[in-house]
Amino acid sequence: MIELPPLVDHHCHGIVRGELGLGSFEAYLSEAAAPATPGTTFFDTQTGFAVRRWCPPLLGLEPHCSPARYLARRRELGAYETCRRLLRATGIGTYLVDTGLPGDLTSPAELASAGAAAAHEVVRLEQLAEQVADTSGSAEAFVANVAEAVHSAAQHAIGFKSIAAYRHGLALAPDPPGPADVRRTAADWLAERPVGGRLTDPILLRHLLWTAVATGRPLQLHTGFGDPDLRLDHADPALLTGFVRATAGLGTDLVLLHGYPYHRNSAYLANVFPHVYADIGLALTHTGSRAAAVLAEFLELAPFGKLLFSTDAYGLPELYVVGVALFRDALTRLLAGWVTEGAWSAADACRVAAMVGADNARRLYGLD
Amino acid sequence: MIELPPLVDHHCHGIVRGELGLGSFEAYLSEAAAPATPGTTFFDTQTGFAVRRWCPPLLGLEPHCSPARYLARRRELGAYETCRRLLRATGIGTYLVDTGLPGDLTSPAELASAGAAAAHEVVRLEQLAEQVADTSGSAEAFVANVAEAVHSAAQHAIGFKSIAAYRHGLALAPDPPGPADVRRTAADWLAERPVGGRLTDPILLRHLLWTAVATGRPLQLHTGFGDPDLRLDHADPALLTGFVRATAGLGTDLVLLHGYPYHRNSAYLANVFPHVYADIGLALTHTGSRAAAVLAEFLELAPFGKLLFSTDAYGLPELYVVGVALFRDALTRLLAGWVTEGAWSAADACRVAAMVGADNARRLYGLD
Amino acid sequence: MIELPPLVDHHCHGIVRGELGLGSFEAYLSEAAAPATPGTTFFDTQTGFAVRRWCPPLLGLEPHCSPARYLARRRELGAYETCRRLLRATGIGTYLVDTGLPGDLTSPAELASAGAAAAHEVVRLEQLAEQVADTSGSAEAFVANVAEAVHSAAQHAIGFKSIAAYRHGLALAPDPPGPADVRRTAADWLAERPVGGRLTDPILLRHLLWTAVATGRPLQLHTGFGDPDLRLDHADPALLTGFVRATAGLGTDLVLLHGYPYHRNSAYLANVFPHVYADIGLALTHTGSRAAAVLAEFLELAPFGKLLFSTDAYGLPELYVVGVALFRDALTRLLAGWVTEGAWSAADACRVAAMVGADNARRLYGLD
Repeated sequence: MIELPPLVDHHCHGIVRGELGLGSFEAYLSEAAAPATPGTTFFDTQTGFAVRRWCPPLLGLEPHCSPARYLARRRELGAYETCRRLLRATGIGTYLVDTGLPGDLTSPAELASAGAAAAHEVVRLEQLAEQVADTSGSAEAFVANVAEAVHSAAQHAIGFKSIAAYRHGLALAPDPPGPADVRRTAADWLAERPVGGRLTDPILLRHLLWTAVATGRPLQLHTGFGDPDLRLDHADPALLTGFVRATAGLGTDLVLLHGYPYHRNSAYLANVFPHVYADIGLALTHTGSRAAAVLAEFLELAPFGKLLFSTDAYGLPELYVVGVALFRDALTRLLAGWVTEGAWSAADACRVAAMVGADNARRLYGLD
Repeated sequence: MIELPPLVDHHCHGIVRGELGLGSFEAYLSEAAAPATPGTTFFDTQTGFAVRRWCPPLLGLEPHCSPARYLARRRELGAYETCRRLLRATGIGTYLVDTGLPGDLTSPAELASAGAAAAHEVVRLEQLAEQVADTSGSAEAFVANVAEAVHSAAQHAIGFKSIAAYRHGLALAPDPPGPADVRRTAADWLAERPVGGRLTDPILLRHLLWTAVATGRPLQLHTGFGDPDLRLDHADPALLTGFVRATAGLGTDLVLLHGYPYHRNSAYLANVFPHVYADIGLALTHTGSRAAAVLAEFLELAPFGKLLFSTDAYGLPELYVVGVALFRDALTRLLAGWVTEGAWSAADACRVAAMVGADNARRLYGLD
Repeated sequence: MIELPPLVDHHCHGIVRGELGLGSFEAYLSEAAAPATPGTTFFDTQTGFAVRRWCPPLLGLEPHCSPARYLARRRELGAYETCRRLLRATGIGTYLVDTGLPGDLTSPAELASAGAAAAHEVVRLEQLAEQVADTSGSAEAFVANVAEAVHSAAQHAIGFKSIAAYRHGLALAPDPPGPADVRRTAADWLAERPVGGRLTDPILLRHLLWTAVATGRPLQLHTGFGDPDLRLDHADPALLTGFVRATAGLGTDLVLLHGYPYHRNSAYLANVFPHVYADIGLALTHTGSRAAAVLAEFLELAPFGKLLFSTDAYGLPELYVVGVALFRDALTRLLAGWVTEGAWSAADACRVAAMVGADNARRLYGLD
């Protein structure tokens, strides 16, 4: 009854290239940084169960077959063919790919080709700044090179992403730091920084955010849960309120990624600030059979024109499949239920489904 | 199966008097302070969909008709007749009206007349203090006049309301400030205050709260979401714990308004502190088809004798209709479901429905 | 369809010995410290309704009979026989009993005997330290005696429990305090401490936690709601992140008790840290007909091998019955629903039910 147009996956990552064994496959099912506790497996999670539900049938197996059997079939087909089959089953028409993760991952172009879809790049600010730091001899050069790198990226990238939540937490002073502060902090950081060292200083993080805001491209901000590098309560999107107020009316939109378990806070910010959008990606993939319940919480305060589908898939093509299947199933189940109750009209339900699945992202990112 | 007595709407506001166009009507559907993002409309929210579901039939139209058609019919009937028809369809028997909002709004008496119901006034502390400040020539006069104004208001008002959450946030020191501190702070504030200037100083806010507590009238406190003037995480009702402890046993009841998305925290405080009550108003109106899910979260820890229905309607008579319809539908659906499962007895369900809808408020506010 | 093995109740307390009147019975239904608000009763809560649903039939009465009738029947049977009948109806095979609560409560051995089950002791750290303080003449003696008492307890206890959330809140510095700090703080505390005085100093609380961690026995930590002695937002398990990181890889497991309303945060920590487990006890008993909804929120991020059943029952044998009945009903309802939808396989659902009800606790605590 409720049909979805080709989806825009506005936040995702590349796929690992080589073949995967049981252990290396399993590691992508969790946000943990260490192997599963002895006696347990990451397959025994909502994500693991969702992969076993949705993916085996796409490779000719029974749903819920054992992980070993699934991995054997995957090896039989080869990583490339598996990826191609899985991606083409998703119904994703456009990928917006955060290219800032390390590892041997497919590029946006490769993803587009494997998935028979379009792809655009989202540039991760902190990684960009760290690359610039690797080649800048002085604070002055660093500041100038960051400015140039961000503005140059804005020419081809569809948007920017910040992981300040991982590096400092979101309790950042709202305003842009002064040039002298930025220069002095950059000098201190460069002086003590090993090659490849991470940018964690709040002054430099704020400088990056404001440099990106100046480009006018949409700015994605990690909020809510992620790997254990992050402290959950320091990633509450409500902590961004000051920054949100400071950037209101400047013409740059902010996209609050993930949000869970503070996703009602993301939805609230999207409700009251015209330039704020909320993303539902990671929250669904990691909650599996609970995806409809979690999505429903987004749909409380988030205006329907401000909510964005994504998969936040990373590493495994299976996570694209699961991200789409859970979204599609959750959204159509919720909306069909509300239509049946009389709470929503069928026409509105179809319209909102298209908005969340594709139209909002098309308008926000200027995809035509 | 579950019938409700005439409802006590223990927290609401006046209705705008004039005719409304599409844009001015739409603005009341959201807590945002700015117009909707270009390409979106506040009608595309749970509140907008709920208005289109419940109100058109009361004016002779199909549910879910277009906003333009609904507004045309509204103009045809005129604002007064629309208001009269909508209010009389609600089943509200008593309105407790916060009169502290600016704008040309109906008084409690007008609301009572249009709705064929009773009405009482709830006095907003910060507005009272600001009015007193406009006419007080010195800190001494301000302190004396505030005391007199609050005690005089307590003679006719059914209760007080504080919006300290908007002015400073709820992380207030729990105890009453000393008289010297109050006088000194008041002097500083009056010296620099433009006419109409807002009271935001935490010492003066605490002084107001404690002055109200001394009257023994119930004290309503804004908690949780609201317009973007407020910072969400500074409005978590858990931040009031110190104040709640400090006021225990004094004979004055505290009513935690709204609460969402921290409504489980409100319910917790109502569970463990005898003088704390929890309100469900705004949370339902803004979550629409999710009202039953949100109400259910209140019904986890909140003792059934401590939960209070309200609409928190403001500006539009439609918001009274929606507040009642969502409450009635959500409550009866939840309770009937629990009776069907055998979790609750039918007699208990009917009793609890009457308590939440009217009886708790009658006991708390001492209505007839 | 989904059957559960004999349950391991990994967190519970003793039962009061004497007969109970209506008022003294009712007090155990709530976490409040004061009697119910005039005009209300603690029976009008989810816990009260759950007791009236599940317990009367076990004593030969109709479900939902009046509290007075139930109490009369209870007196008729006598406290001992009531306890025996109720406990034996639960299906609990093993009790892990926190013996740190004051009052005339049954011991683990008595609980085992009445319930025809096994029982083990969990030692409460703060109470142990306070007992040691009562008999230690100097800071040096206190430090030495605490070390010995904890290590001696580790010989017979199945685990330790900390209520640091009540004493200081969970925002504790993550690392073990230095010996000089501990000695100096202990000296100050002992100097001013009345007999029986509570340990609330954060340095001493951290010292206790780290002393327990050194034993390798599982360490239970109170998080989330409890009686009004605790400040809710200071009991958010996310505040433990630093301590969790500091204890990673040391071989000691941490069990986050309760968690509600921050249970999604507990589940997150269990997801990303191999040595963290999440408990669901108190959250179900106090939310009654909402138990399935609350349990479902745990089942979003918590790996299925890291979630633990408990009742957190205290004082009344009825709370064991209710804790089990709500868990059993909630878990089987959720899992059967997911199997029906095709989201989970039936075999997985049975396996997960056994894991959460017993197997995870058996592995974690090293039961037979």
